[in-house]
Amino acid sequence: MRKILVIGAGKSTSYLLDYLLGKAESEKLEITIGDINPDAISPVIANHEYCNVIGLDIFDDAERKKVIENSDIVISMLPARFHIKVAKDCVTLKKHLVTASYVSPELLALDKKVKEAGLVFMNEIGLDPGVDHMSAMQVIDRIRDNGGKIILFESFCGGLVAPEHDNNLWNYKFTWNPRNVVLAGQGGTAKFIQEGTYKYIPYHRLFRRTEFFEIEGYGRFEGYANRDSLNYREAYKLQDALTIYRGTMRRVGFSKAWNMFIQLGATDDTYTIENSENMSYREFINLFLPYSPTDSVELKLRHYLKIDQDDIRWDKLLELNIFDQTKQIGIPNATPAQALQKILEDSWTLKAEEKDMIVMYHKFGYELNGEKKQIDSKLVVTGENQTFTAMAKTVGLPVAMAALKILNGEINTPGVQIPISKEVYEPILKELESYGVNFKEYELPYLGYNPNSVVN
Amino acid sequence: MRKILVIGAGKSTSYLLDYLLGKAESEKLEITIGDINPDAISPVIANHEYCNVIGLDIFDDAERKKVIENSDIVISMLPARFHIKVAKDCVTLKKHLVTASYVSPELLALDKKVKEAGLVFMNEIGLDPGVDHMSAMQVIDRIRDNGGKIILFESFCGGLVAPEHDNNLWNYKFTWNPRNVVLAGQGGTAKFIQEGTYKYIPYHRLFRRTEFFEIEGYGRFEGYANRDSLNYREAYKLQDALTIYRGTMRRVGFSKAWNMFIQLGATDDTYTIENSENMSYREFINLFLPYSPTDSVELKLRHYLKIDQDDIRWDKLLELNIFDQTKQIGIPNATPAQALQKILEDSWTLKAEEKDMIVMYHKFGYELNGEKKQIDSKLVVTGENQTFTAMAKTVGLPVAMAALKILNGEINTPGVQIPISKEVYEPILKELESYGVNFKEYELPYLGYNPNSVVN
Repeated sequence: MRKILVIGAGKSTSYLLDYLLGKAESEKLEITIGDINPDAISPVIANHEYCNVIGLDIFDDAERKKVIENSDIVISMLPARFHIKVAKDCVTLKKHLVTASYVSPELLALDKKVKEAGLVFMNEIGLDPGVDHMSAMQVIDRIRDNGGKIILFESFCGGLVAPEHDNNLWNYKFTWNPRNVVLAGQGGTAKFIQEGTYKYIPYHRLFRRTEFFEIEGYGRFEGYANRDSLNYREAYKLQDALTIYRGTMRRVGFSKAWNMFIQLGATDDTYTIENSENMSYREFINLFLPYSPTDSVELKLRHYLKIDQDDIRWDKLLELNIFDQTKQIGIPNATPAQALQKILEDSWTLKAEEKDMIVMYHKFGYELNGEKKQIDSKLVVTGENQTFTAMAKTVGLPVAMAALKILNGEINTPGVQIPISKEVYEPILKELESYGVNFKEYELPYLGYNPNSVVN
Repeated sequence: MRKILVIGAGKSTSYLLDYLLGKAESEKLEITIGDINPDAISPVIANHEYCNVIGLDIFDDAERKKVIENSDIVISMLPARFHIKVAKDCVTLKKHLVTASYVSPELLALDKKVKEAGLVFMNEIGLDPGVDHMSAMQVIDRIRDNGGKIILFESFCGGLVAPEHDNNLWNYKFTWNPRNVVLAGQGGTAKFIQEGTYKYIPYHRLFRRTEFFEIEGYGRFEGYANRDSLNYREAYKLQDALTIYRGTMRRVGFSKAWNMFIQLGATDDTYTIENSENMSYREFINLFLPYSPTDSVELKLRHYLKIDQDDIRWDKLLELNIFDQTKQIGIPNATPAQALQKILEDSWTLKAEEKDMIVMYHKFGYELNGEKKQIDSKLVVTGENQTFTAMAKTVGLPVAMAALKILNGEINTPGVQIPISKEVYEPILKELESYGVNFKEYELPYLGYNPNSVVN
């Protein structure tokens, strides 16, 4: 038996565990799940013949080392900041490692030792980052193998609600960590390059500089820029590309409405509010509006944000009950972002029967034999239910597949890496297809950066 | 002879040195100026009978301690972050200390030792902080001594250009550190309290939430909130005041125009621009605008910021030559804020013959015998020339006066302190009057927080 240790069994591990346990017999796998809260793991998994659940506090150095030593490969699904503890043990104990998280500088610093030990430390092999890397590099490499030169790369991804349950005015529900949604775009100016010119968008304008996309059968979406569009310029070898733009997808109209909260200052996470616990939703909103002895919070907000009587954004605000005098934030010493999250969770939490949806959109511009061409590549995945979500599928399956392929020696180039080499993306993308993760490609005349599709 | 050591002889020290040297004979003072760049000090000062200029690197511990040991009191006019080195020596060597800077947590931590040694460490005794503390506390204490209770305190201060040289569309020129002007309002959400309600303004809205003030003989001004309105709530004993609002004054229209740069992202100091050195002003502005293959930077900016054809803000931008294709930023690895500062310095640098102006405005609301009343207190000081500026006068004179009064034992309560006690503010405000620093007071019916004076 080969021993796989999965540390952390949160939301994203349903498909991951299902995949590994499903292959356990044929592939001779023994899965150990180590979690701080082992009782929360579903009995169907915990009682599986090839599964072993243990309580694991990753801050208990001795215990952590013991379980890692007793495995052949480690999958860390912990919050990103905790991977480094596990990674250092994996170096010492000579175990492969798989994570779905961004490569931290600390992790990258282990690269030399990882290579010397002949280990594979595969990271960023979830959805975004993960499937985006693999699907983009597959097309980029193919274009290059045919003699083409990439001049434009745009890539957008979003976690949304499936069309059949897309029934609120925002066309949005939380299908992943709500906190990340509230804080999206914070922490630095968005930076990208368009037709050879660097562009910078500050946070307070980010949601007003969207682009539109059409996905056949699913209608229109919009995208706002990620902070980090140029992060993978070298990894993807796109130093000569004139346009590199990465972003997040939402349904059309979300960004303009979300911008209201940014303008108010209600997404701020840098300070705590006085008296937040007993504060009503209405009082919370009023914190960000000028004082008036007579005017209502409603009128002050309309005026402050210049919202006309018939603006749909107004209905979106009403739908969230932000003017409610009775509902309370209920969180002591909340930041504005935490308070806003509480308000949004009342409205945007998926119901048990509701399904999520993942959308991804790549645009590749290239030159081949003196001619400019374009390929669009699009992915839609919808979830099965609240456990087997599209998010859990697209995050968890690539992680599980990578782990098994490393164990089987199919992926064997050592080092701290992300899935941008053929050795990694080809077999995994191929296998993902059999699970319904299918990109559709469209060859188009080259549009370049089309100003008509930009909302200024 | 009593020995005064002045460390750092920058822009703000003209009046300070003039005052001390003027009193040197009668008060038996010997002034030593220690500066990293002693040659830059004017010969009039350096050759003064009672003055002694030395080169001093404050990072040279032995040298620094030697000169401090050889003095009776130390005035530190260094950048604020360097005071702590001097302060620690002053504790060890038992010397009084005067600075015009905010009390840092490190400095405050010395309080016990300072008291035990019977030393006076006087800080925040320049203009703002300084004259604002003293003039506000004088009125507050007087109201309280008469049995009144403070219910409202607003305080605004600004460094501007004197009316006779106020000849650009922005009604603004740099009369102090330009970098601080470009970064004004950054580093945290503005927080204040209005009629018992906390209010928070994010940076990107700060310059759109101004108030207006009238100063007799000088016309109209506007003010935007400081980040720290509640910082002195306890020091001033204003815990029961319903409104506390501190801010910065500009001429009317400045804030609305300045907000254009904030909206663009051009005041950001958190990242560096690619290729900034050879970038034209026009290219710099275009960094923050959407790409277009055809539209001009001008039209894109007009559209992005919704600037009508006849909006005076447009003329303000033109006056700064921001669309110039030939003028270059000329700074390698500049942040947007540094690049913008360069552009502004072309237009906003005071000419040799031009004078500056300081304005300060306090508003006190109080209850006395069941009746609500109001006092407004206003100060205008104009400079003499580029050396003897209003800023140098209002910063330097209180520092110098405090030092002399400490030396003479008139100010003798030990501890790390700011000038909010009668012992300090009464003699200094009185002496400042003879130098033309005169507040005018106006008794008014109580207006409270008047919504008609608020630009939402």
